[in-house]
Amino acid sequence: GFARIDHHRALRKGFPEVVYCEGKTDEQAAAILVRLCERGDGPVLGTRASAGVYERVRATVPDVEYHPLARVVRLMRGVDSPKGHVLVVCAGTSDLPVAEEAALTAEAMGARVERLVDVGVAGLHRLLSHLDRLYEARVLVVVAGMEGALVSVIAGLVDKPVIAVPTSVGYGTQFHGVTPLLSMLNACASGVGVVNIDNGFGAGYLAALINRLGD
Amino acid sequence: GFARIDHHRALRKGFPEVVYCEGKTDEQAAAILVRLCERGDGPVLGTRASAGVYERVRATVPDVEYHPLARVVRLMRGVDSPKGHVLVVCAGTSDLPVAEEAALTAEAMGARVERLVDVGVAGLHRLLSHLDRLYEARVLVVVAGMEGALVSVIAGLVDKPVIAVPTSVGYGTQFHGVTPLLSMLNACASGVGVVNIDNGFGAGYLAALINRLGD
Amino acid sequence: GFARIDHHRALRKGFPEVVYCEGKTDEQAAAILVRLCERGDGPVLGTRASAGVYERVRATVPDVEYHPLARVVRLMRGVDSPKGHVLVVCAGTSDLPVAEEAALTAEAMGARVERLVDVGVAGLHRLLSHLDRLYEARVLVVVAGMEGALVSVIAGLVDKPVIAVPTSVGYGTQFHGVTPLLSMLNACASGVGVVNIDNGFGAGYLAALINRLGD
Amino acid sequence: GFARIDHHRALRKGFPEVVYCEGKTDEQAAAILVRLCERGDGPVLGTRASAGVYERVRATVPDVEYHPLARVVRLMRGVDSPKGHVLVVCAGTSDLPVAEEAALTAEAMGARVERLVDVGVAGLHRLLSHLDRLYEARVLVVVAGMEGALVSVIAGLVDKPVIAVPTSVGYGTQFHGVTPLLSMLNACASGVGVVNIDNGFGAGYLAALINRLGD
Amino acid sequence: GFARIDHHRALRKGFPEVVYCEGKTDEQAAAILVRLCERGDGPVLGTRASAGVYERVRATVPDVEYHPLARVVRLMRGVDSPKGHVLVVCAGTSDLPVAEEAALTAEAMGARVERLVDVGVAGLHRLLSHLDRLYEARVLVVVAGMEGALVSVIAGLVDKPVIAVPTSVGYGTQFHGVTPLLSMLNACASGVGVVNIDNGFGAGYLAALINRLGD
Amino acid sequence: GFARIDHHRALRKGFPEVVYCEGKTDEQAAAILVRLCERGDGPVLGTRASAGVYERVRATVPDVEYHPLARVVRLMRGVDSPKGHVLVVCAGTSDLPVAEEAALTAEAMGARVERLVDVGVAGLHRLLSHLDRLYEARVLVVVAGMEGALVSVIAGLVDKPVIAVPTSVGYGTQFHGVTPLLSMLNACASGVGVVNIDNGFGAGYLAALINRLGD
Amino acid sequence: GFARIDHHRALRKGFPEVVYCEGKTDEQAAAILVRLCERGDGPVLGTRASAGVYERVRATVPDVEYHPLARVVRLMRGVDSPKGHVLVVCAGTSDLPVAEEAALTAEAMGARVERLVDVGVAGLHRLLSHLDRLYEARVLVVVAGMEGALVSVIAGLVDKPVIAVPTSVGYGTQFHGVTPLLSMLNACASGVGVVNIDNGFGAGYLAALINRLGD
Amino acid sequence: GFARIDHHRALRKGFPEVVYCEGKTDEQAAAILVRLCERGDGPVLGTRASAGVYERVRATVPDVEYHPLARVVRLMRGVDSPKGHVLVVCAGTSDLPVAEEAALTAEAMGARVERLVDVGVAGLHRLLSHLDRLYEARVLVVVAGMEGALVSVIAGLVDKPVIAVPTSVGYGTQFHGVTPLLSMLNACASGVGVVNIDNGFGAGYLAALINRLGD
Ligand SMILES: Nc1ncnc2c1ncn2[C@@H]1O[C@H](COP(=O)(O)O)[C@@H](O)[C@H]1O
Ligand SMILES: Nc1ncnc2c1ncn2[C@@H]1O[C@H](COP(=O)(O)O)[C@@H](O)[C@H]1O
Ligand SMILES: Nc1ncnc2c1ncn2[C@@H]1O[C@H](COP(=O)(O)O)[C@@H](O)[C@H]1O
Ligand SMILES: Nc1ncnc2c1ncn2[C@@H]1O[C@H](COP(=O)(O)O)[C@@H](O)[C@H]1O
Ligand SMILES: [Mg+2]
Ligand SMILES: [Mg+2]
Ligand SMILES: [Mg+2]
Ligand SMILES: [Mg+2]
Ligand SMILES: [Mg+2]
Ligand SMILES: [Mg+2]
Ligand SMILES: [Mg+2]
Ligand SMILES: [Mg+2]
Repeated sequence: GFARIDHHRALRKGFPEVVYCEGKTDEQAAAILVRLCERGDGPVLGTRASAGVYERVRATVPDVEYHPLARVVRLMRGVDSPKGHVLVVCAGTSDLPVAEEAALTAEAMGARVERLVDVGVAGLHRLLSHLDRLYEARVLVVVAGMEGALVSVIAGLVDKPVIAVPTSVGYGTQFHGVTPLLSMLNACASGVGVVNIDNGFGAGYLAALINRLGD
Repeated sequence: GFARIDHHRALRKGFPEVVYCEGKTDEQAAAILVRLCERGDGPVLGTRASAGVYERVRATVPDVEYHPLARVVRLMRGVDSPKGHVLVVCAGTSDLPVAEEAALTAEAMGARVERLVDVGVAGLHRLLSHLDRLYEARVLVVVAGMEGALVSVIAGLVDKPVIAVPTSVGYGTQFHGVTPLLSMLNACASGVGVVNIDNGFGAGYLAALINRLGD
Repeated sequence: GFARIDHHRALRKGFPEVVYCEGKTDEQAAAILVRLCERGDGPVLGTRASAGVYERVRATVPDVEYHPLARVVRLMRGVDSPKGHVLVVCAGTSDLPVAEEAALTAEAMGARVERLVDVGVAGLHRLLSHLDRLYEARVLVVVAGMEGALVSVIAGLVDKPVIAVPTSVGYGTQFHGVTPLLSMLNACASGVGVVNIDNGFGAGYLAALINRLGD
Repeated sequence: GFARIDHHRALRKGFPEVVYCEGKTDEQAAAILVRLCERGDGPVLGTRASAGVYERVRATVPDVEYHPLARVVRLMRGVDSPKGHVLVVCAGTSDLPVAEEAALTAEAMGARVERLVDVGVAGLHRLLSHLDRLYEARVLVVVAGMEGALVSVIAGLVDKPVIAVPTSVGYGTQFHGVTPLLSMLNACASGVGVVNIDNGFGAGYLAALINRLGD
Repeated sequence: GFARIDHHRALRKGFPEVVYCEGKTDEQAAAILVRLCERGDGPVLGTRASAGVYERVRATVPDVEYHPLARVVRLMRGVDSPKGHVLVVCAGTSDLPVAEEAALTAEAMGARVERLVDVGVAGLHRLLSHLDRLYEARVLVVVAGMEGALVSVIAGLVDKPVIAVPTSVGYGTQFHGVTPLLSMLNACASGVGVVNIDNGFGAGYLAALINRLGD
Repeated sequence: GFARIDHHRALRKGFPEVVYCEGKTDEQAAAILVRLCERGDGPVLGTRASAGVYERVRATVPDVEYHPLARVVRLMRGVDSPKGHVLVVCAGTSDLPVAEEAALTAEAMGARVERLVDVGVAGLHRLLSHLDRLYEARVLVVVAGMEGALVSVIAGLVDKPVIAVPTSVGYGTQFHGVTPLLSMLNACASGVGVVNIDNGFGAGYLAALINRLGD
Repeated sequence: GFARIDHHRALRKGFPEVVYCEGKTDEQAAAILVRLCERGDGPVLGTRASAGVYERVRATVPDVEYHPLARVVRLMRGVDSPKGHVLVVCAGTSDLPVAEEAALTAEAMGARVERLVDVGVAGLHRLLSHLDRLYEARVLVVVAGMEGALVSVIAGLVDKPVIAVPTSVGYGTQFHGVTPLLSMLNACASGVGVVNIDNGFGAGYLAALINRLGD
Repeated sequence: GFARIDHHRALRKGFPEVVYCEGKTDEQAAAILVRLCERGDGPVLGTRASAGVYERVRATVPDVEYHPLARVVRLMRGVDSPKGHVLVVCAGTSDLPVAEEAALTAEAMGARVERLVDVGVAGLHRLLSHLDRLYEARVLVVVAGMEGALVSVIAGLVDKPVIAVPTSVGYGTQFHGVTPLLSMLNACASGVGVVNIDNGFGAGYLAALINRLGD
């Protein structure tokens, strides 16, 4: 076969292998997802998945979900009731798909997730009027494109870990996300860990691992 | 000779040629500055000047000033009493030399200049407790290294032009100022014009031109 | 909802939130624009808007305009008669969309705007025969692709603020606008503030803020 | 003065302002550190500090420590007995200064820290023979130069958060740490958050925040 | 004609000119391939070839093969029975096309080729359970996208030459293969030679030259 | 020995091998230069040469010259009286060393060379008042740092070949000459060939080859 | 109108304005070309022109030519019989469009042009067997993609100016022509001037200017 | 201690751990080297070693060698008489230190090594007059700075593996070796594997592994 599924991963990492569907045909992606669904009794996750992948998986696994904005295929089998408190904050409307990928991933890993959207720095009062929500979280995922200044502002306000996700939202010298990535890596406030551009999955995963420590 | 001074510049641009002393020997830089001092009855400015340049100029022109932090040689001849209101804001202690170069330049061009220092985003309250000073300015120069988020925050609060100056303060992926430069070019708030990395001179010059419009 | 409109912005910044339509669906963009039109009695601006966005907005707001070259949706409600003098200069025919975005934005903010087009440095006499027009402006927006040398030439001639807009017009090492951006940041003439590549909106906005100071 | 200390930070962030001494004179750095020592009853930290800074601080604050390898000045006042379990892993001998900066920071924030050094991927058995130590940690800081592959290998083995620190150890296309940075951002294993090149401080800080959640 | 075939190459290099079909029309590519097939009695290879090229060649040369995954057109004329042992290892399912291009090339040059797929570092046990296959090879081709850490791990385990092929599989800061390229050039383990991104052909060619030395 | 002098070069290229002294010890550089002087009856050139190299050569070859600004060692043996007309133009005082390296090289190859210095675009009248000198040249070498706009302006005015030399004069985003290099490669005016950053030698050499065509 | 044609250019530069059709609509490009054809009695050139542009121009100007490979629209009105000798050399079949743009441009400027194609360095004998053709030329245009080594080899053999044109032919780290551009700028052989990536027009133009000097 | 020597490496990789001395103190480097010398009966190698490291090792291990040009410390204990044939070719005099590091490494691994120096492409006859030496080698290491064209030329002539080493010799856009690196990765001739900039060690190591296959 074309794939060697890492069935051992749930044991080792506390969560089964997640299928990155981009660069695979719909058939390949669906086949791997179905195998994962059929074999285990835990959750299954596919990212960057087209509706076509979802249709193919649903034919065999009726209880699978599809989240078109985030392009996530998800099976919530064996997931306990949500625990802890992950807050996913996003700067602008266009960052929503990435933010949602993060939220859906963290949920699949058992986290209770809240969302706070469109609170970018251009209108700071929108953020400052939700300080309480920032303070309540156990770990924060901050998703921002353009120049990514939201991360610095939030990390300056809370005493919890902040996972920063740069997005490719912008143009010209935004360089498809390089600008907020650099901005986040150099945030003048402390307590920030950064993931790859548009990597909502990675941020949600890391946030969920951190969130579990507080249980 | 090695230089063809643009004596026409004061007429054309409203300010005489400014001498960029880096890459010139102390002798060359001083010679050009002395010629400018002797010829005109207006102000003279030299940037990136060593104390050695200053010593040489002072031998001939006793009323010349030297500002070691900003490395500026300045003669305030024929400068009217300061007018308008340029506010120079800087994020951290290490950004001071660049901020000071901006302030000294704007002053030489007749602007009244105020300074607000060490109000970086990591401790937002330091900035928010000076909102009134931000609101009073006619034009703002914002100087920041690290990720430069201070520009976005300030530009989101005021309705005046903001001149953004990225500095090379930082390390690693700060890339000698590239990170705040990109950040400022992509600021989610509007009304921002950006100058070269560490170019306090350019920012002060532009701010003074803008400041004059309000007279 | 997917958006948290910053209704406070007109108070704070002197102009309401502007909708950047790229990366939003036509439906999303139109919905936000309609909400802004319905709520306020001031101008409304949408940039990077397709004709589809316009059609949707016009269904509810009949007096909205569409400028296809600049891809701008605009409502000139509550805009006073134009004041001051912003001059938008552009180097080549292909830079027109960006130049027009700048001009339309400045107009929406109350500025009187003039245009001077296709006066690139390859044929310098085209520019030199319009020196009077350069001298009359209160603030200049200079839009150029290729190597962007027009900015240095103009800034060397006038004593007013110059807002420089690099465009992505060119190929190969023009790197989608990086070359004129760098060129403008390093202009040997003083008094230049730079905005992001193809950011006509940002330049027009900043020019209008500066223009207001002279009223 | 030249600095506006953020005395509010311990309340807001759970740890007082940390002094980044690079780009400050020894006198400036020492003065700020002394003010922080004198004012609070909590810990004080200075990074990238020369021995000269230390000497100056010790004159006033005798119980201050100096760690020459990491270039850290530290006062462990008011720090509870170490809790939790942060494991700092480093790939090669030359990565030690950065690893040590991380460890000292986390300790100052109350974490119990263990170290595992010179276990780079070129000799994988060195790492595999310490799997138990990897499994015991609550959060891991992995410090690596060259190509940074150690992060992917470790993150593939544990189910805990991994903070990845690229170092500038290497030459040529290592590009002063850019290569391991990119490598870590693209790690094929999940659960990784990345900090700036050579930013041991940032990694230790984040690890300590995460470590606290498990208390 | 538009091409000057290097018919001398088989003599000089031990293998005839290989046709890189990208950037040529199907007609051009097929015409050159047919000329090569008709003239010599040795193997013929075309890379990055569409099915359309294949159809055109097959019309004249019935025994030509097509490998759609690798996009290779191949004629195995005059190839001796496979000798030696080249092992092509690939990290993920999406790297298969490049790995297959390498394998098909080496085979055309007379090498015996084995394949080991989907053994990326995220699940290290998949690789470690095939150590014997690694040890048996005379030369290894390692194909990996994402961060390319598989190369360092394998090169640390074997005492044979490793040819490393970075692929463009990934997103964001993977920069279309730049990240694994840099990673492989800086591998902390020795004995690695790197080829261009996605250059399966070049890796297979080099591996076959090396493999011949052991005959 | 450590060098294999290309004595055949004068025949093949019309000028003997030129010694690039950087990266060689003074002893090595001088030894090669002396060998060239002793063997031929033509000119000899050494670039990037320290005074130490010169001293060593002069001990054996008394008629050798040294030009400290350009760091050129030169022997004008067998050079005919200057012919044709190469004009070397330079933008600022700091570009002089590179301009001089170009001029000295072209002279050694038999060209008559004129110089026009400090005529940068910031004060355009300085250039426009020398149009006649531009028009008289057979080929022009234009040397500029900062943003290099001088090349576009000159190439728009003359109908002769322009050799453009970017210099590393500037700071921040001038990136050690990358900005004027890009600017020159994208000059909107035609008839421009570009050489490496600070490569006065290469520009002078090419200009001299072109100049010979007009004899 | 949208364009300000530089009718003065033929006088100033010895050749009328050339229309760069990319980024203009077919209608715009054709309208400008027709205006140039109707007004002057000299040649007219349009580059990067689609067949649609040609059709539109031909409707009014029947004797206009179209060269689809090079995408050039050309009117050879008033061009004298070809003079001198420009040799256009190209490395591979895929570089032909750029080479042809160069050749067509030089011809329109009155040069006699010869072509030598597919003589890349991978099969050096193809080039060495045409040394006589290299020696006969007055100026050479060398067009190459991949790594562009052909330029160094040719410039090492001839004593005439070499205009180097990097092309975007290649993949991965060829970076759309950046690799041969850098290679050509750093050619170890002298006498090379470089133009922008894929800029056949610029190379042909410069070669024709140089060629004229020998008349 | 600060180092965890990989004593198992000789078994696994066929050669003991090599000490990279840069970034270690002389004391650290010497201590590790002495430990390796004392423990094994095989060869020991230290790269990038200062004379100070050598002095310290020699105090304990009298038969250790030092090669100042290559900065290599070497103990040839237990090395069999040289076998096979590795040819190290270098383009210019300044590339010698890297070439020598390669040669010394391959010798330490048992290879018979020949050297061919200063045969760069600018004077091709120097190379072509040594074709026989190229043809005799089993594997070639080609070391070149500037644009690195030598690799393409040689790889087009031989049917043996070529290990390409870019060096940082050059200036401006040579970018400390990036230009020849890119050039070598995109060589139009086949059979090339590339190592890091200035990595003579890596090239010699790989060449020796390949050379062994032919024994
Ligand atoms: N959106 C995503 N971004 C980054 N990594 C992902 C993403 N989705 C899945 N992954 C990881 O990529 C690996 C999939 O590799 P593959 O063998 O190509 O399916 C899995 O082990 C996941 O940990
Ligand atoms: N610190 C500075 N940064 C940027 N430009 C400067 C600076 N100081 C002076 N300049 C400008 O650089 C030009 C000096 O060029 P030069 O002929 O080399 O002295 C002057 O015309 C100034 O406008
Ligand atoms: N293919 C080309 N590449 C670069 N420059 C060109 C090309 N074709 C025409 N040009 C130049 O670009 C200018 C056209 O600019 P525009 O006003 O946009 O038509 C002309 O002055 C030409 O000198
Ligand atoms: N000059 C060199 N360039 C690249 N790698 C080297 C060099 N010298 C030694 N090495 C490798 O670097 C590793 C040394 O790492 P360390 O533990 O820091 O001494 C060894 O395993 C060698 O394989
Ligand atoms: Mg919004
Ligand atoms: Mg501070
Ligand atoms: Mg035009
Ligand atoms: Mg080690
Ligand atoms: Mg897989
Ligand atoms: Mg000057
Ligand atoms: Mg060919
Ligand atoms: Mg030489």
